[in-house]
Amino acid sequence: MKTNSDIIIAHNKPKAETFLSKIENKTPLFIATIATTETGKIPGLSAAGQNPDFTDFTPPADAELLLLGKCKSIQGVPITPEGIPTPGLITMSALKLADIPVMIANAGCKVKPQVPFIELGGNSGRDIRTGNSVDNVEEVIERAKTAGQQLAKTSDYLVIGESIPGGTTTALGLLSALGVNAEGKVSSTLPLNPHTLKTDVVRLGLKAAGEKFGSLNNNPIKAVSCVGDPMMPALAGLTIGAADQVPVLLAGGTQMTAVLALINALNPKTLGNIAVGTTRWVTNDATSDIKGIINQFCKVPILAADLNFGNSAFPGLQIYETGLVKEGVGAGGASIAAMAKMGDAINKEVLLKAIESNYKTLMSMK
Amino acid sequence: MKTNSDIIIAHNKPKAETFLSKIENKTPLFIATIATTETGKIPGLSAAGQNPDFTDFTPPADAELLLLGKCKSIQGVPITPEGIPTPGLITMSALKLADIPVMIANAGCKVKPQVPFIELGGNSGRDIRTGNSVDNVEEVIERAKTAGQQLAKTSDYLVIGESIPGGTTTALGLLSALGVNAEGKVSSTLPLNPHTLKTDVVRLGLKAAGEKFGSLNNNPIKAVSCVGDPMMPALAGLTIGAADQVPVLLAGGTQMTAVLALINALNPKTLGNIAVGTTRWVTNDATSDIKGIINQFCKVPILAADLNFGNSAFPGLQIYETGLVKEGVGAGGASIAAMAKMGDAINKEVLLKAIESNYKTLMSMK
Repeated sequence: MKTNSDIIIAHNKPKAETFLSKIENKTPLFIATIATTETGKIPGLSAAGQNPDFTDFTPPADAELLLLGKCKSIQGVPITPEGIPTPGLITMSALKLADIPVMIANAGCKVKPQVPFIELGGNSGRDIRTGNSVDNVEEVIERAKTAGQQLAKTSDYLVIGESIPGGTTTALGLLSALGVNAEGKVSSTLPLNPHTLKTDVVRLGLKAAGEKFGSLNNNPIKAVSCVGDPMMPALAGLTIGAADQVPVLLAGGTQMTAVLALINALNPKTLGNIAVGTTRWVTNDATSDIKGIINQFCKVPILAADLNFGNSAFPGLQIYETGLVKEGVGAGGASIAAMAKMGDAINKEVLLKAIESNYKTLMSMK
Repeated sequence: MKTNSDIIIAHNKPKAETFLSKIENKTPLFIATIATTETGKIPGLSAAGQNPDFTDFTPPADAELLLLGKCKSIQGVPITPEGIPTPGLITMSALKLADIPVMIANAGCKVKPQVPFIELGGNSGRDIRTGNSVDNVEEVIERAKTAGQQLAKTSDYLVIGESIPGGTTTALGLLSALGVNAEGKVSSTLPLNPHTLKTDVVRLGLKAAGEKFGSLNNNPIKAVSCVGDPMMPALAGLTIGAADQVPVLLAGGTQMTAVLALINALNPKTLGNIAVGTTRWVTNDATSDIKGIINQFCKVPILAADLNFGNSAFPGLQIYETGLVKEGVGAGGASIAAMAKMGDAINKEVLLKAIESNYKTLMSMK
């Protein structure tokens, strides 16, 4: 099989190759599922915003960036406290290069994006330390299934990403509630992964809910309601709704393992038509273990975009090579989809050039 | 050209044939654009609800019917005061028969549908007698354009319908403000078209706004804001966003002439890639004149589905032949799309059988 050489088969090779063969030369619909939570504002947990309160603006601004090529809810683009630009810049560049359509699914944002979005009926999430973090889980899953069923009819396949600050902590929360051991295994936007803080937050959440590790493995709806986030039911529902018609690429890092665990609990046959699509920064990350999480409950394959910003002229992009950010807004999955659609016409060098050009334009707008 | 014999070429034959040739054997995306207004509650104006206050529930219930095959916001389905079922029943049956995907665009509903919908940032409309009926017109047009651009990439073409009670009165309002003579020419859900009442309502609205016939023909945004409804900017924006990529079938009766007039004022080149798709009940209606409105400013073709419920076993359907309801929820356009996609496999008899079967099921759910 002649495959774009910058798509890495990172896990479960035979299934990964089968999945890849289904998406080559095809045009997907990209869906960015956005939400915010109070968990994301716990100091030290997330770098997805200039400061904790700013995380409310990151997902809507990412949505605007994807649809308009610039943000409306904020000046410039979302950045980390160090000034590193959102991975949404990668996603936007990849989708534009390959002319891939994009829709936004609002799973629960405090600040609504100033662009059209699919409303799924969720609310912004509370701090999981309350043990009661997400509303309307069952209803959001149902609505998202309905949307997924319809969207699947419009496209060769779906690529579904997320923008939700603090999402790896809530991923650890849901995985723990469902009995998947993910302590020390979830990724981080920070180079120094704050595993101890994440573990403490999750343990407090489980305790507040009167639950413990694995105690909700037969009650996935309650598990999300107690210690999950609003992105999970939306993304799981979209996937379950679509995957019996078309392949679905879950575009994200270790957060997608929580979505997989939720799908596994709700409708395991869906797992047969999906893959995780992420970046080399996630699959090579020494501070997390995406494969170690997935291996505990399923054989879903992982693809990774072999992005490399080491030679970028822009320090803000070069720094991605130090482990900052790594993934988000479906950057890895969007890159894979663009490469798979266009063959070697889009490789990592072409993509980096487009990213640099868009970055330059966006910086000059400030 | 071998065309489904139950698609009537009703107006501007050469352009209609060209349009039809572009959509045959193709699969569109159907979008139902929903909104509510206080205008729709003026007694005697609309039959799109059991009583005036009920009109707030008609569009969301229609949306639910299309996506779920049943309503959630109300028991049963939307009906006229006489108990005649919503034309959404025709739309749902046609889309299901031909496996055509459907999305809902919320242009401004007081009651939100309990299904996923694309949010375009509009509000429910005020009574046009205030002379200040619609908010955010420019912003909704922009957002709808953005959505139309993306949705066009997913489909061979778009079919865009409406569900908005009182919509022919606001159509008369906008047409009048733009200098198109539509008095006595707009259609009605009622067999006795209340033209005098509509004309009086529109004249009061123009007066309240300090405007008169044609005085806003250079200011379409203000015309919608004063005496239009929220569906118009949404539907016009979706169409303008999509039509430079794919054909767009405007699925509705005389309300679509107001949308055409708005498009003509905003972006006339869009008119070259669109058609109106409606029912024989509209094009044959002696109490309205869709062609006479369109001829005043453009050459957009009209297609009509040759629906005939005269032989139906159900009195609630048979009564459509007396001129009640006639059109709505894109019933005509959805029927045309289903027939165009499936050729003679879907003719009016096949469609009526499906409608009767779905009607029976829905009645038994009550």
